[in-house]
Amino acid sequence: MFEDKNNRTEMSELGEFGLIEHIAKSVELKNEESIKGIGDDAAVIDFGDYQTVVTTDMLNEGVHFDLTFHPLVHLGYKSIVVNLSDIYAMNAIPKQVLVAIGLSNRFSLEAVEELYAGMLLACKKYGVDIVGGDTTSSKSGLVLSITAIGRAKKEDLVYRSGAKLNDLVCVSGDLGGAYLGLQILEREKKIFIENPTIQPDLSGNDYILERQLKPEAQKEIIEKLAELKVKPTSMIDISDGLSSEILHLCKQSECGCDIYEDKIPIDPQTYDRAREFGLDPTVCALSGGEDYELLFTIAQADYEKLREHLDISIIGHITDKNAGVNLIDKSGNVVKMVAQGWDALLKGSGK
Amino acid sequence: MFEDKNNRTEMSELGEFGLIEHIAKSVELKNEESIKGIGDDAAVIDFGDYQTVVTTDMLNEGVHFDLTFHPLVHLGYKSIVVNLSDIYAMNAIPKQVLVAIGLSNRFSLEAVEELYAGMLLACKKYGVDIVGGDTTSSKSGLVLSITAIGRAKKEDLVYRSGAKLNDLVCVSGDLGGAYLGLQILEREKKIFIENPTIQPDLSGNDYILERQLKPEAQKEIIEKLAELKVKPTSMIDISDGLSSEILHLCKQSECGCDIYEDKIPIDPQTYDRAREFGLDPTVCALSGGEDYELLFTIAQADYEKLREHLDISIIGHITDKNAGVNLIDKSGNVVKMVAQGWDALLKGSGK
Repeated sequence: MFEDKNNRTEMSELGEFGLIEHIAKSVELKNEESIKGIGDDAAVIDFGDYQTVVTTDMLNEGVHFDLTFHPLVHLGYKSIVVNLSDIYAMNAIPKQVLVAIGLSNRFSLEAVEELYAGMLLACKKYGVDIVGGDTTSSKSGLVLSITAIGRAKKEDLVYRSGAKLNDLVCVSGDLGGAYLGLQILEREKKIFIENPTIQPDLSGNDYILERQLKPEAQKEIIEKLAELKVKPTSMIDISDGLSSEILHLCKQSECGCDIYEDKIPIDPQTYDRAREFGLDPTVCALSGGEDYELLFTIAQADYEKLREHLDISIIGHITDKNAGVNLIDKSGNVVKMVAQGWDALLKGSGK
Repeated sequence: MFEDKNNRTEMSELGEFGLIEHIAKSVELKNEESIKGIGDDAAVIDFGDYQTVVTTDMLNEGVHFDLTFHPLVHLGYKSIVVNLSDIYAMNAIPKQVLVAIGLSNRFSLEAVEELYAGMLLACKKYGVDIVGGDTTSSKSGLVLSITAIGRAKKEDLVYRSGAKLNDLVCVSGDLGGAYLGLQILEREKKIFIENPTIQPDLSGNDYILERQLKPEAQKEIIEKLAELKVKPTSMIDISDGLSSEILHLCKQSECGCDIYEDKIPIDPQTYDRAREFGLDPTVCALSGGEDYELLFTIAQADYEKLREHLDISIIGHITDKNAGVNLIDKSGNVVKMVAQGWDALLKGSGK
């Protein structure tokens, strides 16, 4: 759909090896640790005295993205970013990615080039090398499976399990925007299907659409924390929504927490659109997911160091395990937090 | 189809996190380098002074496997083995894998357990830890994307690019069997579809069926080479067929080679079934693929050390680049080798 039909090269003209060679031409290795990239049985990475951090994520057409409104170049970008986000959430620096793609024959070479253009843009921005992957055919739609590899000194790694009593709970950026962006896209798609002469109206929604279509990973937060010499006691990225992530963090840290509803950062555009859709903005932030912000805890002693850093909000504090994971709402009521995060297997919606 | 319908747990009863927890229970970490496995944003691996080797492979239902004749437990086993094969082909030792699975709702928990049982069996056999992954839903069939990570000392790594003039070309085991196994399975499937009362006749084909359904990676060859102190000058695993792999190796090593048809190892069962199907056994070995044997080159000086090792055949030698990549047939004719390996994007057949 984002292809120029006049310039279409069928995959069958190239073949698998032709496609790999074609892709390899546009991939350069920039990291000195990337010893060997595409073109052997496996990539080779040298980490010396560092620890290697690896993660993998699969994105399936019709489940994680809808090509009627996810441009391929953005999809490529996002597929890399969501993996890098997991590496940053370990307080590590991503260095390499491997890209496995399953393609049905409705995709042309130009479509794959667009997808890769987005991936390469993300790799350039985050200083990451594509060191290998697999291209194969798929009977159905597009399947992307990305593995990211990062490094960190052993003493710098941050797990989900380190939160301690009285630690402050922090979140970067703002939440709920990606979910509202998706609501806008799905609304316009529905209108378009019902009446193809009506042009999609996406005006005034730039921020939340970008949050959905072209999210970013929190490289700058990790760099800022290092600069400020603040090592979080625990950390997780927000891919499934705040409530789901805080429950993971408290479970693994064997603690409870109090989160204050009025401290949860929500952008005005997110807030307004939520209201228009008849949704509670807080629920969007708690359950929306795909924001790729960082949720982390810090010792109270580190509070002063972070105070000036405006892009981090302190939303609560860690309590005893027996106190449970609670939301203190705007009226002061204590509500037990439940995971309402996106459940891929239950809903299988367009997220 | 390999599920007991009386014992079916719907994925929707568990949810994604429930499934991950369920799976995590059966996964133990055995390698001391596996610092952190399933349950954080990323796995953590410590390689100290070794180099990290990573590879990824995607298997899509209807393209790489047919669930009417690939039992899930074997499919799980094979999905791990094909990735480990790539690590061994670097002369490295696989240590960890990450497993990304896309599932449609026709799969039950019991089906996923079968798949994992096969993966865990392979991991146990090869001494590998499952350190992470992703489970997600898929609109169509089953999608598997595995990333394997291995380690090796820098000086031990073997690339595709090191073959030198007059080196001997070696191959482990025998070739063409996996392809003939697939022909048997497809023939019986066709008969079954035409007449469901006829039971599949798989007798007398144990070896080639196992080659197709439950292949092994060449761990013992790598261990034997280390024991004999033979470091291959170049190496590649045979996943797409001998002709395709030797062309890769010669291209990257900037050399030619002469391969002798009568030296190509073919099992008698492979030979007999090829004849029955009206196929040339040599063509099956050259183009069949999925044998997961190792193709490698050694210096002539190492020949004596390997002579006694019966599971390695010397099938030719490296020549000058200008001489090309040739097959010397049984009548002594020189035939230019062409890549007839499985082209996923052209054929998209049931391999």
